[in-house]
Amino acid sequence: MDLSPRAPHGRLDPYVERYAARTAGMTASEIRALFAVASRPEVVSLAGGMPNISGLPLDVVGGAIAELVAMQGPVAMQYGSGQGVPELREQITEVMRLEGIEAHPDDVVVTVGSQQAVDLVTRVFCDPGDVVICEAPSYVGALGVFKAYQCEVVHAEMDADGLVPDALRQAIASVKAAGKTLKFLYTIPNFHNPAGVTLAAERRAEILDICRSEDLLILEDNPYGLLGFDGEPLRALRADEAEGVIYLGSFSKTFAPGFRVGWALAPHMVREKLVLAQESATLCPPQFSQMAVSAYLSNHDWQGQIKQFREMYRERRDAMVEALHDMMPASCRWNVPDGGFYVWLSLPPGIDAKAMLPRAVTARVAYVPGTAFFADGFGSGAMRLSFCYPTPERIREGVRRLAGVIEAEMELRATFGASAPARELGYQTYDGPSTDLS
Amino acid sequence: MDLSPRAPHGRLDPYVERYAARTAGMTASEIRALFAVASRPEVVSLAGGMPNISGLPLDVVGGAIAELVAMQGPVAMQYGSGQGVPELREQITEVMRLEGIEAHPDDVVVTVGSQQAVDLVTRVFCDPGDVVICEAPSYVGALGVFKAYQCEVVHAEMDADGLVPDALRQAIASVKAAGKTLKFLYTIPNFHNPAGVTLAAERRAEILDICRSEDLLILEDNPYGLLGFDGEPLRALRADEAEGVIYLGSFSKTFAPGFRVGWALAPHMVREKLVLAQESATLCPPQFSQMAVSAYLSNHDWQGQIKQFREMYRERRDAMVEALHDMMPASCRWNVPDGGFYVWLSLPPGIDAKAMLPRAVTARVAYVPGTAFFADGFGSGAMRLSFCYPTPERIREGVRRLAGVIEAEMELRATFGASAPARELGYQTYDGPSTDLS
Repeated sequence: MDLSPRAPHGRLDPYVERYAARTAGMTASEIRALFAVASRPEVVSLAGGMPNISGLPLDVVGGAIAELVAMQGPVAMQYGSGQGVPELREQITEVMRLEGIEAHPDDVVVTVGSQQAVDLVTRVFCDPGDVVICEAPSYVGALGVFKAYQCEVVHAEMDADGLVPDALRQAIASVKAAGKTLKFLYTIPNFHNPAGVTLAAERRAEILDICRSEDLLILEDNPYGLLGFDGEPLRALRADEAEGVIYLGSFSKTFAPGFRVGWALAPHMVREKLVLAQESATLCPPQFSQMAVSAYLSNHDWQGQIKQFREMYRERRDAMVEALHDMMPASCRWNVPDGGFYVWLSLPPGIDAKAMLPRAVTARVAYVPGTAFFADGFGSGAMRLSFCYPTPERIREGVRRLAGVIEAEMELRATFGASAPARELGYQTYDGPSTDLS
Repeated sequence: MDLSPRAPHGRLDPYVERYAARTAGMTASEIRALFAVASRPEVVSLAGGMPNISGLPLDVVGGAIAELVAMQGPVAMQYGSGQGVPELREQITEVMRLEGIEAHPDDVVVTVGSQQAVDLVTRVFCDPGDVVICEAPSYVGALGVFKAYQCEVVHAEMDADGLVPDALRQAIASVKAAGKTLKFLYTIPNFHNPAGVTLAAERRAEILDICRSEDLLILEDNPYGLLGFDGEPLRALRADEAEGVIYLGSFSKTFAPGFRVGWALAPHMVREKLVLAQESATLCPPQFSQMAVSAYLSNHDWQGQIKQFREMYRERRDAMVEALHDMMPASCRWNVPDGGFYVWLSLPPGIDAKAMLPRAVTARVAYVPGTAFFADGFGSGAMRLSFCYPTPERIREGVRRLAGVIEAEMELRATFGASAPARELGYQTYDGPSTDLS
C-alpha cells in the first residue's frame, strides 16, 4: 500500500536540474501523506492536529464580521501594514499577559499563522549549514522549515519534565566542538507537540540560565499554552527574558486556524528584520483576517471560550488515556499530558510504527509515526496520538483498533522473530519521553 | 528631512553578527519609507499603489460572508489544503479564461497575495547568485524578493510596446557570457508597474520564441490584466505556452487586497514544489479569506464590478494625463497607459527625482522615485505617478504641485548649474520607457 501522493508517476520533470538546492529539503512530510487516507470517514484519525472548533458561536463570529464589513469594510479589505493591525497587536499583548509577558505592541509582528513566524525567523537568522537545536521529538512543521532553509537540526532529549538541561548543555557543546554555527534553540515548553510533556516550572530558570550563559537565542513556540487542563497558565520563558527570546503565539488553537493569524514577539531590532521579511514574503498579512480576529476578541468572552475548549479537550484526553490503560498491551508506554492535543506512545521493543501504519489504516485507525518528528530518522518505535478532533467515543474505538493492530504485530514477531529496522541499523533508538506510565 | 523610519537611532543591535547573509538584501524600500509621509491628509499621494475599492458593494460582500459563516463556518475557520480551496481554484481558472488560458484547477496554487507567489517561485528556483532577468524598470516588490534570495537582477529595456525582444536577447547573452546561472524572466506584460506600458500583442510570440529557444522559464506577473481601458483583455503569454510559463494572478486589484488572495498557475511538477513550499511557509493559505473571495465571485457580478473599476480608473488616468499635458514643463516626458494604475514620468535632464522628493513632500505631493524600480541604481531621472487612489480633482491638484516643484528645480539648476548625482557617477542613466509623449 502506497500512502504517498507524491509517489513517482512516470512523468519526467523538465525542471529537475533547475530547482534551488534548498528544494532537496522540501519533501512531503509523513503527516501530509496521511491526510488523504485519514480523511476517509471510516478511519478513526488519531493523526491530525486539527482543533475541534465546533463549539465556536457562529452567530457571534458571523455578527462581528458582518459588522466589520459594514462599518470598516474599506479598511478591512485594503492593504495594511507589514507588521499587522495595531489594534490586534494591542490585543495580542493582552493575550500574552496571561502568561506573565509584559510587551509593547510595537514589538509584535503578525504572521500567517505561527508557521509563518517560524519561517520568517529562520529566514532572518539561518544560513545553510547553521544549526538549530530542537527537542527530541519536535514539531514536524518546524523541522520542515529548518530543512527548507538547509539548516542542520541537533536534537536534545526530553523527559517527563520537558527539555533536559544537561541534554541541552551537551547539544550546545557538541555543536561548538564540531565548529558549527549555532543559531537558536527551538522549543515548545507547554503541552509539547508531539511529546505531550511540559517544561516544569522549576526547570525554566535553568534553561534560561544555560541560554544566557551560552548567548543562545530561544525561539519559544507556544500555540497550546492557554490549553492546560489544570490551574493557571505557566509563566512563559519570554516573561523572564525579553532580549534573548523570540516568542511565537497563535490564534489557531484558542480561536480558529482558518484565519491564519499568529504572531512573533521579538526584541526590537529583530522585530524590524521580521517586518522587512514579512513585507518581502506577503507585503502584509491578511488585513481582513486580522480585523476579524480582533472583532471576535472585542465582541466575545474569548477567555470563557478558551475555558470551554480546555474542558472539551480534557474530556478527550481522559477518554484516550483511559482507553489506552484499558486496552493497550502492557509493554506499551505513554504519557498523560496536562494540556494540548497529543499523547506520545512508545511501542513494544522491535515494532516499527511506520512499517505498521498500512496495517493500522487497513484496520481503520491512523496515527503519525514517530520518525516524522525527528530530523535524523529516530523515533521508529513511537507514534503521536492526537485526541483533539475525534469524539471520546471515536477515540475509544480508535484505541481499540490500534491495540488490536499492535497485538497482531507482537504475535507476528513472536512467531517469526524480530528484525526491526532500527536494530538492523545498529543504533539504539531514542523514542522520546514516556516516563508517565499509565 | 529624513524620510526613513529605519534611520539609525543610536541603539545597538546585539544580533547584528548573527543574521543570515540574506538579510543584507532585506532593506526598507523607498516606497515603504514613503508611507508615513504620504498618508498625511494634506499630501496628495501619487506614490501608493492602493486600489480604490470604495465602489465595492459592502452589502453584497457582508451578506456573502455572513452566509459563509452561518452555512460553512466550521470549514471556513478550519485548516485547509496547502494548495488552496478547490472551489476557488476552479473559479480562478474561469478568471484566467478571460485571457485565453485553459488550465486545470489542479495546477493552481493559492498564495497570500501574488507577492507570496513571487516569493515561493524564487524559493523553489533560485540559489544565491542565480540571475533573474527583469524589465527596466520593474516591480519594486519583486526586486525585493530577488534581493532577499540573494539573486542577481539583470534588467532588459522596454519601449512603448513593452519588453524589447533584442534587449531580452542581449540580456540572456550577457548572463551566459558571464558564466552565470539564469533562472527565469520576470515580466509584467500588461499595464506595467511602474512603467505603464503593455507588451504589444504582435511582440508576444517573439518573446515566447526567444524564451523557448533559450529554454528560459517565464514568470508572468499579471495583476492588472483585466484592468485595461480599451477593448478585450490581451491574450496572456501563458495562453500560448503552458510548460514554459508560471503565471501569477491576484484578486487584489479586481476585487480587494485585504483578503490577500493571489495564485500561481504552474506546470505540474513545479506546482508540486510550490505546494510543498507553501506548506512550509504557512501550512495553508487562509481558508476564510479564500472562501470569502469564492463567495463573492459566486454571489456577485464580479465582471460587472471589474468593468466599473476600469471606468473609474480610466477617468483618473484621463485626469492625470490631461493635467500633465496642461501643467508639466515641456521637457518632461510621460506615457499614456492603456490600463492599470501608473504613469512613468521622465524629468528634464539633470534633475534627480530622489533628491527632489523632500521638496515635493514639503509642497504636499508625493511620488516614488524611479530608482526604487531598478536593482542597479538607475532611474534617478524618472518617477512613478499613480492615479489609482486619489480622486480626479486631487490628481489634478497633485500634478499642479508637482509641476511647480519641478519648475523650481529647473530654475535652481539654471541659476546654479548642473550637478546631478547620476552624471557625477559617470554613467548614462536609462530611465525607462517614455516614448508616448503627451
